[in-house]
Amino acid sequence: MDKPEAAKLGWKVLESGVPYENPWIRLRSDRLKAPGRGEFPYTYVQHPGGVLVVPRTDSGDLLLIRQYRYPVDQWCLEVPAGGMHGESDAAVVARKELREEVGASCRELRQVGRFFVSNSLMDEVCRVFLALGCRRDQPQRLEVPEFIEVVATPLEEALEMARDGRVQDGKSALALLMAEKALRGGG
Amino acid sequence: MDKPEAAKLGWKVLESGVPYENPWIRLRSDRLKAPGRGEFPYTYVQHPGGVLVVPRTDSGDLLLIRQYRYPVDQWCLEVPAGGMHGESDAAVVARKELREEVGASCRELRQVGRFFVSNSLMDEVCRVFLALGCRRDQPQRLEVPEFIEVVATPLEEALEMARDGRVQDGKSALALLMAEKALRGGG
Repeated sequence: MDKPEAAKLGWKVLESGVPYENPWIRLRSDRLKAPGRGEFPYTYVQHPGGVLVVPRTDSGDLLLIRQYRYPVDQWCLEVPAGGMHGESDAAVVARKELREEVGASCRELRQVGRFFVSNSLMDEVCRVFLALGCRRDQPQRLEVPEFIEVVATPLEEALEMARDGRVQDGKSALALLMAEKALRGGG
Repeated sequence: MDKPEAAKLGWKVLESGVPYENPWIRLRSDRLKAPGRGEFPYTYVQHPGGVLVVPRTDSGDLLLIRQYRYPVDQWCLEVPAGGMHGESDAAVVARKELREEVGASCRELRQVGRFFVSNSLMDEVCRVFLALGCRRDQPQRLEVPEFIEVVATPLEEALEMARDGRVQDGKSALALLMAEKALRGGG
């Protein structure tokens, strides 16, 4: 069993299946039995995990990006991010997304946080990286259907936008606020 | 067409279907055609939207909750929250979740934020409410399979835990940080 806390609670998996799967999304559906609760189903999205990168230049700007997101039909302000698909080292994915989505490299990369995206519907865990000394020294390399504009934003304005909802993407807003202390600490 | 921004980009929905649906989760799958990009599929979770409530007592504590989350197999520190299933007024859902999950009522409720949970995989929008003057004046009313412990937490400690990842649930952490300014402003 891959869920030790569930086992401690006496939950048993009676049946497990994958009712839907494509290269981007995979549903897992379990039939569970729990003490005093009988049998019930639980279906959720299985996800390999993701990384979010907060890129700071030496002049003090954050390199945010703006991109169109089909599910919510909006252009959203975000930080560069990507999934762990087939890669086990989160720092490698962080550098790759910074390179591809922003066209930037960094002098230093460190993890500053970690959170679950939506713990009742998905198992996705996101790791937050702070990238210091970023320089836009190469062209973006975008996959279809990405179209991404880089928006250099002063630190204080970016943090304010994370707090007031102008960074509409919640994962990006939280990444910025989890990085706040390290960002202010210099580096 | 329910996606005006997509239409502005010249995207066309060639086909739309629901490959999976149960009472808690619904997948929508579209076949799209976009200028210069040809045809491609997009599958995402359709969600009625949710509310998150940051409950503050007059003594200055926040009423957090701890609950077991099966997809991530962890006991997570969170704020009370729930989905809009069948209800159009977010404030009504906020008061209901505060009552059911914490056993509390509040003197004042106001919206302090709004964000997309995971804009590439879901259309869920979460509204963040600040509940002031909260009192635990009734029993919790929990639905199976919820088991929820209320954890009264001093304001500064709760905000610190949101920033450093001890509030493992990202939606709750962001709700706390979006409410920070209003929380400090008193009320």
